Amino acid sequence: MRFRQIISLLIFSFTATLAQAEIPWAFQPLPEQPPIPEDNPQSDAKIELGKQLFFDPRLSLTGTHSCNSCHNLAAGGEDGLAQPVGVNGSKGRRSTLTLWNAAYHTVYNWDGSSKTLEKQVWQHILDKNVMAMPDSKTLLERLNDIDGYRLQFDSVFEGEGVTETTIAKAIASFERTLVTHNSPFDRFLNGDKQAISDYAQQGFEQFIEIRCASCHFWVNMAGPNPGLALQQGEGFYELFPNYPGTDYEKRYGLADDIGRYDFSRIKTDKRMWRVPSLRNVAITAPYFHNGAVKTLDEAVRVMAKTQLNRDLSGNEVTYLVEFLKTLTGEFPQIALPRLPATPKRTVMKE
Amino acid sequence: MRFRQIISLLIFSFTATLAQAEIPWAFQPLPEQPPIPEDNPQSDAKIELGKQLFFDPRLSLTGTHSCNSCHNLAAGGEDGLAQPVGVNGSKGRRSTLTLWNAAYHTVYNWDGSSKTLEKQVWQHILDKNVMAMPDSKTLLERLNDIDGYRLQFDSVFEGEGVTETTIAKAIASFERTLVTHNSPFDRFLNGDKQAISDYAQQGFEQFIEIRCASCHFWVNMAGPNPGLALQQGEGFYELFPNYPGTDYEKRYGLADDIGRYDFSRIKTDKRMWRVPSLRNVAITAPYFHNGAVKTLDEAVRVMAKTQLNRDLSGNEVTYLVEFLKTLTGEFPQIALPRLPATPKRTVMKE
Repeated sequence: MRFRQIISLLIFSFTATLAQAEIPWAFQPLPEQPPIPEDNPQSDAKIELGKQLFFDPRLSLTGTHSCNSCHNLAAGGEDGLAQPVGVNGSKGRRSTLTLWNAAYHTVYNWDGSSKTLEKQVWQHILDKNVMAMPDSKTLLERLNDIDGYRLQFDSVFEGEGVTETTIAKAIASFERTLVTHNSPFDRFLNGDKQAISDYAQQGFEQFIEIRCASCHFWVNMAGPNPGLALQQGEGFYELFPNYPGTDYEKRYGLADDIGRYDFSRIKTDKRMWRVPSLRNVAITAPYFHNGAVKTLDEAVRVMAKTQLNRDLSGNEVTYLVEFLKTLTGEFPQIALPRLPATPKRTVMKE
Repeated sequence: MRFRQIISLLIFSFTATLAQAEIPWAFQPLPEQPPIPEDNPQSDAKIELGKQLFFDPRLSLTGTHSCNSCHNLAAGGEDGLAQPVGVNGSKGRRSTLTLWNAAYHTVYNWDGSSKTLEKQVWQHILDKNVMAMPDSKTLLERLNDIDGYRLQFDSVFEGEGVTETTIAKAIASFERTLVTHNSPFDRFLNGDKQAISDYAQQGFEQFIEIRCASCHFWVNMAGPNPGLALQQGEGFYELFPNYPGTDYEKRYGLADDIGRYDFSRIKTDKRMWRVPSLRNVAITAPYFHNGAVKTLDEAVRVMAKTQLNRDLSGNEVTYLVEFLKTLTGEFPQIALPRLPATPKRTVMKE
């Protein structure tokens, strides 16, 4: 863990020096494409198949919840709720993270418990509070029974067909297309100084000065990933709350969840969390792993206090929020897929 | 009720006479557009607003269920389940009807309890087993708080803003675009004799001969609507089961629900049901008001026995099913809308 914090501090000192003169090097627009793993190259047919699976509620035990049920791509790529609601109304433990630009991360989930997009697919399909499939076999059988899927899998994954691996690969391929380019901040980084307001520019300067930027930097505003210090599977984690015992901590129960430790059982992982992206943060309330904070203003105050031991003035909050709003990108148009039918039988074995 | 059955019989006798020679007049391709009510003309902006509302889970109390959750437009316009699953996992009473081509009906729901598409919108928003809004005020306030909605309503419905009426009008306008033209059967009706197989043509002849067509005819394969005998708000209902006491009735609990009577409290409405459309029937399993029958083959056998007192041979079932498959139309591509954000606050008041 330590070495990642050192990386962060190094980058921060570097950027702080440059802040007055020019845009710090540690801020970069989103690259055109996220990293594509060598064993899962993109193809139009694979992306289309992945999109169908993503929107298909038959991936859940009850046939009621698709990936899109919680990761709503018509909105911020999440559900707008403090806790996700899975099959049979059961609530998930941690607030849904956005899938927009997720492909620029190097680990997944709040605790980094999946090292690839492919791996997190099955985590959620099998999670009893999410899609609640009892085992992978049940889903493989169900998809194999749907001609339209079986034929596509045979064509996209020649000689492999419908397997745990190919399902994950198809969905991950689609998820790698979920990129929001050209936010006002990206345009600003690309040289258009009018792209963000004066208030937002002041907010950006504060963002660096008060050291929000020590964690939220680089292409995804989420630390050194990808292609900068960290490789796929290596996470950038921070302690949260960093300054324990604040009023905010109590009010919002911020320390009630033990974080990455619960997954890794490594003592130093207690209350460590993967740094989330700030891209599109203005449209992904509520905030934090427990979704306890409802507004961006309050989230900014909470972070300044719990992470940086700083009480912000009203103006500082305003400027920072104005800056954060410039991180909302342009959303690609997504055509609703046509899901293959299950002719002559019901989906669910009831 | 009687006069509608008489209409049906008249049309049937007419078509039966012609069946050998030419395509009966009582079968017609879907008109280009469904009827548009005078007080709710279509416009691009209104349809777009309606689409956003249709896909927005914030229309449900818990922020988890959009119209599309049950009326899945990526599939058959319904949920593929025997009973719909609403907020908090509660189950609806009757199987979800498809929304594709619903605009060609003259009444809505299995029991005809809504006379317009506009009216059914609020039925489902307020149904505690569906979207579970406690009252319209809660939703009006919620939508008014979302700048992106308030501005659109002000622009589309000048001087009216967000009201019960304008919400219903916008959603109904979008629903009137959900039309599947150009099914193989429509192409056949338009003169392309190769559009459906020989088996399907035999099935079509049987469909008329054994009198399936006495209820399932006209543009929506659902009786004399619209523009033929019935006006908007008048329903075409049939008794189901028509021949009581069959094994099928017991096995599938077909008589357990009292049908339209439960809504109208008129004695002659007992076990009367609005005749459902057969368009896209091959992709909307399971079947009947209780979704108890899982396959189209079995649905055909059940209908022949309970409605026409007829035991079908295996071949007859095959041909009829081949015919019914030709009723699957072409689905328009739908671009997923962008839902207006609720910046700086959470959707749900938790």
